[in-house]
Amino acid sequence: MKYPNGKKTETKTVRNASTSRRGMSLEADINTTNEDYLRMDVAVIHKKPTPITIVKTDYPKRELAKITEAYFKIPSTTDYNGIYKGRYIDFEAKECHSKTSFPFSSIHPHQIRHLDAVERHGAIAFLIIRMSHYEKDYLIDARTFIDYYDSRQRKSLSYEWIKENGHEIAYKYQRPCDYLNVIDKVYGL
Amino acid sequence: MKYPNGKKTETKTVRNASTSRRGMSLEADINTTNEDYLRMDVAVIHKKPTPITIVKTDYPKRELAKITEAYFKIPSTTDYNGIYKGRYIDFEAKECHSKTSFPFSSIHPHQIRHLDAVERHGAIAFLIIRMSHYEKDYLIDARTFIDYYDSRQRKSLSYEWIKENGHEIAYKYQRPCDYLNVIDKVYGL
Repeated sequence: MKYPNGKKTETKTVRNASTSRRGMSLEADINTTNEDYLRMDVAVIHKKPTPITIVKTDYPKRELAKITEAYFKIPSTTDYNGIYKGRYIDFEAKECHSKTSFPFSSIHPHQIRHLDAVERHGAIAFLIIRMSHYEKDYLIDARTFIDYYDSRQRKSLSYEWIKENGHEIAYKYQRPCDYLNVIDKVYGL
Repeated sequence: MKYPNGKKTETKTVRNASTSRRGMSLEADINTTNEDYLRMDVAVIHKKPTPITIVKTDYPKRELAKITEAYFKIPSTTDYNGIYKGRYIDFEAKECHSKTSFPFSSIHPHQIRHLDAVERHGAIAFLIIRMSHYEKDYLIDARTFIDYYDSRQRKSLSYEWIKENGHEIAYKYQRPCDYLNVIDKVYGL
């Protein structure tokens, strides 16, 4: 998928210390961005809690249940969803520390099936991949990704493929991962 | 909100042991229903994991992280969301053990604000209330509920109000809380 008008999102190549993403996690940046969307009443998009299996709890006081044994579960859906301009939004976000490629093994097959299902039902579904080395975030449309994934040409997305098929997400101070700005252009909202 | 055609959902008043809801929780019934929607590719709607704050973890083996201290958090959103016929769906489900009324204190103010926000952004947003004593489930449109809540006439929904303004949800074996059937009628999907 390309921009209908052939334009690329404006990106800043020079960052000073106060606006650099360095040291911030992608999750923290997306949470900050979502909080600003919520505060400005632009969209309602939240990270889902981490799925866990609770085995033991302790009730030292009536109100304060303490979980004393629990385990992480493999997620059956993506981490983020919500609503924007009346559309259902669903995405997964991943940091990639390799300079050259993003391995498919970084995403659970459940999550790929989930993206496929919601996209077929009318969602705006995508991945956000942060290429940490380059300090750049890309939005990749789920259908574009799944078509390539299903073609089994490779076991990863090369950085070249990501630059060619993805859409760079601009950094702003209040919205360090301003993906809705990209969605407006890519999906024509 | 009333049915556009004035019809009420068909309900079974006689249930035999194998189809009775008795003893099953509303959450279990909604999960079973959502699994059937997913299996039949009707909709993609999931319960969000319970939000917790993790304080301590233990790594006895590399792969197996054990959470040894965690606490429940107050949820900032509702428990269920997803997509159906291209529409964003969002709801909270509550069991009510009183015969006469459903107290507003059963729902966190955060959750009411969340329902209000998603509804304004175009969601199909509602509550599902199970009146346990009567073994009946009702869908209540979020806007109808919030208008009444904001009017501060009372601190609860009377059972009479629920019957008058809510929409009874039919029980089916594969879909013990078949709320999408009601949504088709109430929201004209």
